[in-house]
Amino acid sequence: MASIAPDVLLSALRWRYAVKRFDPARTVPEETWAALEDALVLTASSTGLQPWRFVVVTNPALKEQLRPAAYGQAQVADCSHFLVMTVRRNLGEDHVDAHVSRMSEVRGITVESLGKFRAMVTGNLDRARAEGRLDMWQTHQIYIALGNFMTAAALLGVDTCPMEGFNPDKVDEILGLGDTGFGSVVCCAAGYRAPDDKYATIPKVRFPKESLVERR
Amino acid sequence: MASIAPDVLLSALRWRYAVKRFDPARTVPEETWAALEDALVLTASSTGLQPWRFVVVTNPALKEQLRPAAYGQAQVADCSHFLVMTVRRNLGEDHVDAHVSRMSEVRGITVESLGKFRAMVTGNLDRARAEGRLDMWQTHQIYIALGNFMTAAALLGVDTCPMEGFNPDKVDEILGLGDTGFGSVVCCAAGYRAPDDKYATIPKVRFPKESLVERR
Repeated sequence: MASIAPDVLLSALRWRYAVKRFDPARTVPEETWAALEDALVLTASSTGLQPWRFVVVTNPALKEQLRPAAYGQAQVADCSHFLVMTVRRNLGEDHVDAHVSRMSEVRGITVESLGKFRAMVTGNLDRARAEGRLDMWQTHQIYIALGNFMTAAALLGVDTCPMEGFNPDKVDEILGLGDTGFGSVVCCAAGYRAPDDKYATIPKVRFPKESLVERR
Repeated sequence: MASIAPDVLLSALRWRYAVKRFDPARTVPEETWAALEDALVLTASSTGLQPWRFVVVTNPALKEQLRPAAYGQAQVADCSHFLVMTVRRNLGEDHVDAHVSRMSEVRGITVESLGKFRAMVTGNLDRARAEGRLDMWQTHQIYIALGNFMTAAALLGVDTCPMEGFNPDKVDEILGLGDTGFGSVVCCAAGYRAPDDKYATIPKVRFPKESLVERR
């Protein structure tokens, strides 16, 4: 596998910041965006369940409609692609069956041969449900996708702004997610920073490495 | 900013898989590992709070000690670097003050000038605490770090295996985290796949893109 130099990775991560002002005139090219969608699809998740759906909003009218649901933040309307990351609530056996069926198809093996895997996954979900942590657990997973997406975007030269500051119920309503079983958890605006976004140049704030990383 | 080609990103993400068998004879070179630690430090988090500490275990005896706490999974002992990702519980004003103080230091501005920011962040934490979702919210953040880490590692040619299957209380006890306020949430073994890991070559299972991504 061809890998990249550590400096290339780190310069992209240092270049990344939470964009305050996007350049509304610039659009992420289709080829680049398609790669970012592929990156989302390739995200790892617990036992591979992919408990999510990603809604990509580029329609200007719909972005304007979503903006008040995000407390008026300009990034929603000014970005190129507004990504709404949704998680499936109360994940159940139908989802596990869909996953097992897909596994059987992709790997050319029988569904029956996956019986032990199915039982293990279903047992995990049942236990989490009984302990009242099923939705929380699956919600954790989509933050893996968010981390992957922001890093992937930075490496492709695309700016982002992750957003938890929005009203999920309103976003779900605007997107008509009501009956789908999916609910919005976190969003990420993507596009290109405006030349006058002053947040682009102020120093990134991180605690010293020695206080965040401990070797044993 | 120098970006990479979409193909380079996607081939790394396709190459990545949850390693079942690490090659115990291979170690991630110091320069590569240091870059991955830098990538962790650069991870984005809600209002920049970085509510985490990363414990990197390379000591063979300590890895062996941790293995039973992860239900005997061989990856804990056979990997090169075992990363325990911990989150600070009940995040409070002392942490916000540390962040504001660091912000003032890095950006060369007064702590007083950050008063509005401090009040906003403290208000967010207080609300989350009152609603019983403070620890869950901060825990979400570390999954951003996990997503970033796995993608960063793949791009540097380092294999990983994310792990939720462990007993956090036992891991915390072994690492002596008791009084630190930090608790383990998720782990990630890193190193190099064994030549005979059959999971390296079986096809990756993902739902079709059109069922995971919806454009509006």
